[in-house]
Order: sequence, then structure tokens, then C-alpha cells
Amino acid sequence: MAPQFSKTDETAINTIRTLAIDAVAKANSGHPGAPMGLAPVAHVLWNYYMNFTSSNPEWINRDRFILSNGHACMLHYSLLHLFGYDITIDDLKNFRQLNSKTPGHPEAETPGIEVTTGPLGQGVSNAVGFAIAQAHLGATYNKPGYDIINNYTYCIFGDGCMMEGVASEAMSLAGHLQLGNLITFYDDNHISIDGDTNVAFTEDVSQRLEAYGWEVIWVKDGNNDLAGMAAAIEQAKKSKDKPTCIRLTTIIGYGSLQQGTHGVHGSPLKPDDIKQFKEKVGFNPEETFAVPKETTDLYAKTIDRGANAEKEWNELFAKYGKEYPKEHSEIIRRFKRELPEGWEKALPTYTPADNAVASRKLSEIVLTKIHEVLPELVGGSADLTGSNLTRWKDAVDFQPPVTHLGDYSGRYIRYGVREHGMGAIMNGMNAYGGIIPYGGTFLNFVSYAAGAVRLSALSGHHVIWVATHDSIGLGEDGPTHQPIETVAWLRATPNLSVWRPADGNETSAAYYKAITNYHTPSVLSLTRQNLPQLEGSSIEKASKGGYQLISEDKGDIYLVSTGSEVAICVAAAKLLKEKKGITAGVISLPDWFTFEQQSLEYRKSVFPDGIPMLSVEVYSDFGWSRYSHQQFGLDRFGASAPFQQVYDAFEFNAEGVAKRAEATINYYKGQTVKSPIQRAFDPIDVNTRPGHGV
Amino acid sequence: MAPQFSKTDETAINTIRTLAIDAVAKANSGHPGAPMGLAPVAHVLWNYYMNFTSSNPEWINRDRFILSNGHACMLHYSLLHLFGYDITIDDLKNFRQLNSKTPGHPEAETPGIEVTTGPLGQGVSNAVGFAIAQAHLGATYNKPGYDIINNYTYCIFGDGCMMEGVASEAMSLAGHLQLGNLITFYDDNHISIDGDTNVAFTEDVSQRLEAYGWEVIWVKDGNNDLAGMAAAIEQAKKSKDKPTCIRLTTIIGYGSLQQGTHGVHGSPLKPDDIKQFKEKVGFNPEETFAVPKETTDLYAKTIDRGANAEKEWNELFAKYGKEYPKEHSEIIRRFKRELPEGWEKALPTYTPADNAVASRKLSEIVLTKIHEVLPELVGGSADLTGSNLTRWKDAVDFQPPVTHLGDYSGRYIRYGVREHGMGAIMNGMNAYGGIIPYGGTFLNFVSYAAGAVRLSALSGHHVIWVATHDSIGLGEDGPTHQPIETVAWLRATPNLSVWRPADGNETSAAYYKAITNYHTPSVLSLTRQNLPQLEGSSIEKASKGGYQLISEDKGDIYLVSTGSEVAICVAAAKLLKEKKGITAGVISLPDWFTFEQQSLEYRKSVFPDGIPMLSVEVYSDFGWSRYSHQQFGLDRFGASAPFQQVYDAFEFNAEGVAKRAEATINYYKGQTVKSPIQRAFDPIDVNTRPGHGV
Repeated sequence: MAPQFSKTDETAINTIRTLAIDAVAKANSGHPGAPMGLAPVAHVLWNYYMNFTSSNPEWINRDRFILSNGHACMLHYSLLHLFGYDITIDDLKNFRQLNSKTPGHPEAETPGIEVTTGPLGQGVSNAVGFAIAQAHLGATYNKPGYDIINNYTYCIFGDGCMMEGVASEAMSLAGHLQLGNLITFYDDNHISIDGDTNVAFTEDVSQRLEAYGWEVIWVKDGNNDLAGMAAAIEQAKKSKDKPTCIRLTTIIGYGSLQQGTHGVHGSPLKPDDIKQFKEKVGFNPEETFAVPKETTDLYAKTIDRGANAEKEWNELFAKYGKEYPKEHSEIIRRFKRELPEGWEKALPTYTPADNAVASRKLSEIVLTKIHEVLPELVGGSADLTGSNLTRWKDAVDFQPPVTHLGDYSGRYIRYGVREHGMGAIMNGMNAYGGIIPYGGTFLNFVSYAAGAVRLSALSGHHVIWVATHDSIGLGEDGPTHQPIETVAWLRATPNLSVWRPADGNETSAAYYKAITNYHTPSVLSLTRQNLPQLEGSSIEKASKGGYQLISEDKGDIYLVSTGSEVAICVAAAKLLKEKKGITAGVISLPDWFTFEQQSLEYRKSVFPDGIPMLSVEVYSDFGWSRYSHQQFGLDRFGASAPFQQVYDAFEFNAEGVAKRAEATINYYKGQTVKSPIQRAFDPIDVNTRPGHGV
Repeated sequence: MAPQFSKTDETAINTIRTLAIDAVAKANSGHPGAPMGLAPVAHVLWNYYMNFTSSNPEWINRDRFILSNGHACMLHYSLLHLFGYDITIDDLKNFRQLNSKTPGHPEAETPGIEVTTGPLGQGVSNAVGFAIAQAHLGATYNKPGYDIINNYTYCIFGDGCMMEGVASEAMSLAGHLQLGNLITFYDDNHISIDGDTNVAFTEDVSQRLEAYGWEVIWVKDGNNDLAGMAAAIEQAKKSKDKPTCIRLTTIIGYGSLQQGTHGVHGSPLKPDDIKQFKEKVGFNPEETFAVPKETTDLYAKTIDRGANAEKEWNELFAKYGKEYPKEHSEIIRRFKRELPEGWEKALPTYTPADNAVASRKLSEIVLTKIHEVLPELVGGSADLTGSNLTRWKDAVDFQPPVTHLGDYSGRYIRYGVREHGMGAIMNGMNAYGGIIPYGGTFLNFVSYAAGAVRLSALSGHHVIWVATHDSIGLGEDGPTHQPIETVAWLRATPNLSVWRPADGNETSAAYYKAITNYHTPSVLSLTRQNLPQLEGSSIEKASKGGYQLISEDKGDIYLVSTGSEVAICVAAAKLLKEKKGITAGVISLPDWFTFEQQSLEYRKSVFPDGIPMLSVEVYSDFGWSRYSHQQFGLDRFGASAPFQQVYDAFEFNAEGVAKRAEATINYYKGQTVKSPIQRAFDPIDVNTRPGHGV
């Protein structure tokens, strides 16, 4: 039934507005305009429609709310405070201050914030992931009479989000997937940082969204038409096979002297403006951070409504547990982000007698084995399924049932050629809970998704990139497709595992760590070409991120390598021994991030003092001086030719490595060589400093 | 007048097809399907409409042709061969082989290839840049009776391009900009690598493009309806204020036994399929790489037509030169990619007596000074004009005149929040010729454009990124906006200058090098916070990429730094001297790429043996061991707080640096320290190895 709106609603809306105004003014930094313009719809949504309980922000079936225009976060912080989340008035007063719960853009560490946003286009793309997760889990676990997982995902986004390509990708896919559980609000305020959007953004947004298969409802007075907003939300809920965009034409900074201009976007309101605003809406201009009792009272009822909704759900869920005990405990386990006991026994192991296999294929073997014991694995590819080998044989596609191409319980997502959208969607699916998403593309095109990968690492999303065709080894496709700098970029990103397994055991180790690292995304860099199974590798050793594959602490040199070049180093070591009487050890370092989690003692045992080390990797050697004295890498782009020819052209073969090993030994002859990992002091990383951001 | 089509056209089309089929078969690798499906429209366009002359692929006013679905490059190579470009039958036989002119995806080194494509979505976005460049140069230089620059930009793209966000961004902007000179062909073949596009891509493409403000013309039989294609091209040419998409519904691999399936997309046709195809179209199945005489004869006429068109244009341009000698010589100079004599005198210089200024502001001062002497500079920002400070005061916006917001001669582009689109458009503008584009965004969001930045470096586009808010120094916006890994990624990219100037002179040096490096893109990493003018800096010294700001070769330590941390190092050196009697020198290393172009002798003089070196930079320290023995960096994400508080929290201040300098000195006490730049052998870079890819 549609709510009846009164003066009390207006007061509440102005409370949201004034809290935002006051917090931005106190910080002397921030964005008051969007919170002021969006306060009405936020009020209508939160107070009358959204299902949530502030006493348990982790309630499984809560409606999700995502603010994609994250710079408007004072809107969200105000709501969280007013609706009883663990955000105090003091937290609001600490807006944008060090170690506060209220940073300059919303971070998921804050209770009630579902996902870290701010970089434009990400939040709405995350929201598509949330909606996919709900649809999938609902289809998987709901039973007749037990609509256990049936929440909506609500998302507000602005003009900036609509201009970003990542949003275009995700929204097009959302239309294809007919995600009726996704209800978004487009803050059509015609203002971005460069001023009026007519300087750059004059497309017909409604028509574009309709082209994607969305339902679009236009509320032309987004400042005042509360009944229109309510009606739009109700209509959106009825749109079962289309995502909805409620287009709200609003005035940015509504009520400010500068309303409707860019002046109110990214800087505090001036004192006289604040004064006139508060007077106009009946607030005391002398007071800051005021919350009228009528607003507190109004929202108290909503807080109760939410608590009751959760209570009812808990009862239903308990009953469900009696009828469906296996599903019940599986839901609980998945949302606790725990893994089933013994799942890792499904990981394949190999001996040197086994065939040479491409690591993309080794990855397929792992996925084929583990998908049965890990129902939380939901995979996909950005239109490279047959190349990435990301789909196990009898996988069901996640598709609207009417398409007859799959159904919503399906665990394989056809993302289309939408790498960035896939990255942001995977982040959203993982943030929803109960799902560990993986997605395939060529390693080179993980870069297209850099914005999402970064937020994944910052937020600690448990997401796995299956990044095949990982070097010049992809051959004929040539330099446009051959990553050179990509792995350096990924390794330089905090809280990101970047696995480059050398064989089958290392591939299993990569998956083992990627799946057990709950708060770290992983990129698996995998080959197109075959790799032999190495003597001396094991899941256990590789799970440390680095180990001595051939120990020669009294030898002449260590060759330090990853992935496809490890076998080349083993061949080079053999050649050096046979032809030159030189003793070379080999260190395999499949994941720097994991290796750096090991004890200093262990790390020193892998990289001992007193022996020169040569790193060998067919990427930019950038960063490798951390783990070697001399580097053999590729500080240029690759070339189009069959794989072995490209490797030979750049001398990435046993002879080329042996030659450089000799040069390195000669260079360091007579010098005392220290382990490259020795440091005068520890770096500033997340372990040495507190604060937000991981 | 519309062409009359005959059997001769069919033969020509099948010649294009069979050349593609034979080349892919010989390489045993490649994509025959799209060339087979697109041969008809390519024939109609090239033979009847496109203005080009194969004897001079650099003719200024040629129509540009861009194949955005670059994997279909055998289509383009076939056309280039048949229309007389310097691509022989042997070149076609060398398809996808080392050092051939016919790599796996089209690279601009090949004569007739306008721009390197392959990564999906880039080419069509480049095409928007080509069209902007034409519109701008036409508006700038055309005079009554002298339509000197009036070419069209033609572009073919596929479903994959349409799914990519970068294309969405660029195409939306193209609609806004009303680029009637852009005529594209959408290969609506319903097949991508995952099979039928109905698994992921069911949006209404025509409606979406219309929402962007495009004209869409649908040719429903893209396999046979040559007259329909011709009529569509003619109609598109009449659409003066809208870009056009000619939607061609085609069958991939038309004529193959596997036509219309994914089977014909990315692998050679089987021998029996080739045989039946050649027999069906009247070619000798025993022959490969056959070119019938009637095709040679037909295309000879077109080659002549192009040569004549160029000749006529040359005559008109010579006449123009008499009437407008200044413009005439400026056009020639710009297309030769030469700079006006003495332009660099406009670069500002500073002394320590000058005020502290943020380097984003220093950048604005440079742009304000040099834009008058460099008409080829065409700037813009991804909706951060007021933050990036990329717009000189009296700049005219590049806008459709009807908007009254600017005109096409304007040199400032409002890109909207479209970083990736901006990057690809800048690449296209530069590839067109006569323009050095620069574009602003926050450094952190250059990552959104990683796909375009990479192609810029690979292709050697002369493009400048004005990347402000370059570190945790941006303060309150917090970790979602604070780059940590970004500069490591950029530095690891071959052929990319990454400037982080420390003061005014270094900012001028950064622009000096960015503008004189014709074949290297540059990223300028610039601060939001103020930087003092340093004693000892100069344009000349900084133009070497690195230099000793404070020389102390007999001192205790060198502090090696960039940008905003250089002044902190200077303060730390002072503190060390005063408080501890320690002598510290300071090395400023604003651009590694430029520094690495210097002689070994010079580099050794900057990084001498015998003294420990500590690098100081508020980014991931990844890669810094190349230039220091010990690193002080930030291997975690940042934090939201006012700038100075964030710096202090992480101890990036004089005290924090001094403390670590002491620790470094103590650590290396009694050891012989070698310069970090010493190497046992040279890396494999573009200087040591031939071949494509830079």
C-alpha cells in the first residue's frame, strides 16, 4: 500500500540534508550537492521500502543498497546514523578524517556499507553482481513455501556512472539476464564536474537503457514528488523480468543558493548558504548535526520493522532448516565464508611422468574436479570460454529460464566481451556473500578491468581471474595480445595474489591459495602452450609462493623464475652442467604476494646469501631486482609468430638463459653477494600501519 | 551516382575471400570468418567510395579506414595487396610470421594500416578520434573554395567491439559531437567466440546507437545486397550532423561449409571446405593466392582514380598555398610532425625565490604559455577540467556550432567521464596527423584507460596524459582515489614516458620532452598539493630524466626521489646534516624512460658506485630496486584525511626519511656498495632486437 506523506517526511529529508551539509562543512571538504538532491528518494526508499536491520547489517536476506556515485557518501552515512547503524554523530563529525568510519568515499569496512565505491561506474556494476548473486542463490536454495533468498538490490547512480564504459557493459548484461530484482535510481541532475552535462553528455539515457532491455520509469520532479517515487518503486518491484531504472530528474544541492550548479558539487556550502537553508526548512541555523525528535521517532518505527522482518525470516529459515538441513547448513557455511572440510583433496597432483599440459588446461582440470565440492564457485568468461577453458563439461549456464539456454541456478556466466564489467560484477557477487566468482579472459585484457581489479584488492574481494594466454607464448596473435607490463602492474598492487604456476602441482597450489585466501583476490596467469611436469614441485611447496625447485646453495648461480620459464631454467641448468661444468639451482616463485607472507627465515632459506641470482621471465623485468641480482626479461613489446619462434627470437630458451647465467656469474666473480631480499628496514605495508584501505 | 554491380564485383569479392582463406590456411592460424563475411562491403567501399592512393599512403586528405575487429586483418591485408599498397603476395604468405608486414593483428607499421587494432573496442574509438581530428583541422584550415581537409573516416566493427565499454564511451561522445564525417559498419553476424551472441548480447544495438544520437541504416542482407550497401554509404554521406552506423546483417564465413557458426571464426577452414568454396565461386581449387586478371583490371581503375584524386588535391593545395601561405606551411609542418622553431622558449623557468605551486597548476601555466605557439596541441579532460587545470583561460571548446558552446575549430574537448574513450580517441587524433592531443584525469583513473594507454605505447602515439592528484597527497578523497600501483604499471610499460616533476622547472622539462618525443606517449603525474621551487633544478638537467639535485659523491647516502617527495628529501638531507652530521645527496629521477635513453656514462655519473642509495616515493616501491639499494615506499593502500596528515601518518616527512636514511647507512656500513644501475648484460629492449612492436 502506498505511503501517505506528511510534514514528518519533509523534516526527515531535511535532517538527512543538514547532516550532510554540516559534515562537509566541518571537514571543509566533500560533496554536499548530491546528498541534498537525493535525500528525498533515499528517505522514501529506506523508510518505506527497504528491508534491512541495523542491529544485524549482515542479515543474509537484507535488501542491498549501493551508492554508485560514492562521492555522495554523506547521504549514506547520514542514513546509517539515522537508521541505527553503528555510526555515531561523532563519526559524522570525523568525516574524511584519518582512521574514521566515514572516509571520503564509502568503504566496506564501515557497517552498513555493502561495497566500496567512488570510482565512477563501479557501484552500479557491482549492483548487477549483487542481483546475479541473489537470483542464483534464490534459484539454488528457495523451495516451495520457503522464499529464503528474495531480496532486492537497490542502487543510486549519477551521470558520471552512466558515462563510464564499465557501467555500459554491466547494464547491458543485466538487461540480457532479465534481472528483475535490480532497482536503480538515476540521479538525472544534469551536472557533473565540468558543469552542465550538455557539454559532453546529451544522449537519451532512457532510450539507451531500454535498448539494453531495461524498464525505465521517469519521475520528473525528483525533488518533491515523493508519491511518484513510491509509485515508481512499486512498479519496479512488479517488473519481474527486467531491471529497472527510476530516472529522477533532480536539482543538485536542492535548497542551496547555488542549487543546480556545479558550485554545489564538490565543496562545502558557504556559511550564509547553510544559514538560509536551515532557516528555510525550519531548522535552527545555530545548531549543527541536529536530529529532530520527530525524525528519530519516525525512523525508530522503521528500525523496528526491519528487526521484525529479520525475526520472521529467522523463524522461516529455522523451519527450512528442519525440512532441508543440507541446504540450510550449506547456506550458513557459504555466508560465513567457510569452505567445506576436505575440499582440497579434490585438487589433482602430478609426477614428472605425467604429460606436458598447458596451464590453462591444468586449470580446467582443477575446475572440473573442485566444482563439485565447492558449490560457491560461480565461473564465467568474457567471451573466451573455449580459449580460457573455464567451463566444466556439464556446467549449466546462468541464464533467464525463458531463453532455454540455462537457468538462474546455473553456475556459468557468459559475460560477453566485457572484461571491466565482469570484474565489477564479480566484486559485487562476492560482496553479496555465498559466492566465490572466477572469470576468464586473456591476461592482457585483465588490464581493461584495471578499475575493478584495484577495487577488488582494496576491498579484499574473494575473486579469481583465470588469465590465460599469459605471455608472448600465445604466439601468432602478436604484440597487441601479448602482455609485457601486466604482471608488474598486478604485483605492484597491494593485497593481490598473482600466480604464475609452472606445472600441474603449482596450478593446484594456485587454486588452493586462491580459494583459501578469503580476503585477497587472485589472478592466475596461465599458458596457452604446454608445460612439462617438473621434478620436485608439489602443492605444499608451491603454496608458500616460492621455493627451491633445485637446491644448490653451494652452486655457482640460482635461476629464479615463474610459470613457463621455470622448465626453461631447468633445461638451462642441465645445459650449464653438461657443457660448462657450472652448477645452477632453480627457484620457482609462482606468487610473490604469498611468498611475502612467509617468515623471514623461510624466505632467507629460499634466497640464501652468497650466490648470484638471475631472474628469468618473459615480461618486463620491472620489479625483479627485488628477487635477483640480474634480470633477463623483455623490456619491449612482443611479436606475432608461432610460439617457439617468438621464444627463440628473444632467446628465451635453454641456450639464451645459460649464456646470461654465465655472464652473471662472471660479473659477480670475486664479490660477496647478499641475498636480494635483505633490507635495512621493513616496508610500510598493511602489517606495519593501521587505518582504512585493506 | 550509384554503381552498377556485375559479375566482376563478385569475382573481386571472392578474390578478397580466397586470399584471406589461403593466408589463414598457410599460417595454420588466424580468422577467416569475418573477412569472408565482410568482403562484400569492403569491396563496395574501397572500389566505389573510398578516396585513397596506394602510391602515397600518407596523403593528408585520404579517407581513413579502420578495422576495429582487428582479428579480421586478412581482409585488410588482402585489400591492401589488391589495391596496390606495398604488400606483396609473399607478404600475405607470411601472415602471422616473425618480422612480416602481416602480423596477427593489424599494426600501423604496415603501409596502409592507419592504426594498430585488435584489442576490441579500440579501433572504433580511435575512429572517433580520426573524425574529431578531421572536423577540427577542416574547421581550422578550410577556406571558401578550398575544402582542403574534408575526408571521411570509415570503420568496420563487430559485436565484440559493441560490447566493450570503451566503444560505448567513444560512440556516445561521437553522437554528442555530431560527427557526420564518421561512417561505420557494424558486422552484425551474431557470432562471437562463445558462439551465438544470444548467450550474452541481446540488446537492441540500433536503438542504443540512436540513443547516442547516431544515424543507423540497416542493410539486412550484408552478404549479397551490394546496391543496398552503396545506397547506405551514400545516405551516410548526406548525414552531416550525425555519425552513421550501417548495420550489416552478415553470415560469418559466408560460403564456408561452417558458415554462420563459431567454427569459422578463429581457425583455418579445412581443406575440403576450401575446395568446395573455391569451386562454388569459380576459382581453381588447386590454386592458392590467386588473383584473377579481371579483379586486377577492375582495381587498377580504382588505383588510378585515387592517384588522380590526390593529384587534383595537390593542385588545389598548391593554389591554397599561394593564397594562404601561413596556413599552407603550417598544415605541412603539422603533418610532417615537426614543431615550430623555438617553441620551447615559451616554457616557463623558476628560481627558488618563486612561490610554491602545485604541479597541476605548473602544468596549467605551461599550457597557457605554449598553446599559442603550438596550434597542434588539442586538449581536454575526462570531466575534471577544474581539477586537472587543463584548460587555458580563453580556450574555445570543440563543440558542434549549433550548440553555441564552441565550434569545431575549438581546441578543448569535453570528454565527459570517459577515461578509456578519451585515451582511445587521443590515439586516433594523433594517428590522423597534425595533432598532439593531451587529456586530463586523476592519475588513479588513467588505469581505467589501460587498454588505450598500452596501444598508445605499442604504436608510439604522441599523446600526453595530464594525470593530476597523483598520490596520497590528494588527501580526503581517500584510498579509492589514491594511486599506489599506477606508476609502477606505467613505468613497466615499454615506450612510455612517466614524468613526476618535482617543481616548476621539472614540469617545463616534462612538457619539453613530452612534446619533442614524437613516437612516445607521456603520462605527467602531477600534484594537487603545493611544491616549493628547488635550488639546483633546471629544464636542461631534468630533461635528461634524472640528475643529481644535491651532489655528494663522497657523502654518506643518496636519497633518490621523484615529484612531491624530492623536496621532502631535501629537507631530510638538511635535517641529517644539522642533527646527525650525516651528509646526504639528493637525486631527482622524474622520468625513468628518458633517463634510460641517456649514455651509460651519464647514468653512472648520476648513480655512482660506493654510496648507498635510498629511494623515497609514496607509491608501491615495486621496481625501485633498479635505482636504489633500499626503498621507502607504500606497499598498501592509502587513507582518507587531509593531505599533511596522510603524509605524516605514513612518515613521508623529513623525520621519517631521515630515520630510514640512517638505518640504510648503518645497514651498509663496512660494505662495498655498487651502483644499482650496474648490470651483467643489457636487457632485451627495442634497441637490442628487431621486429614489430615499437
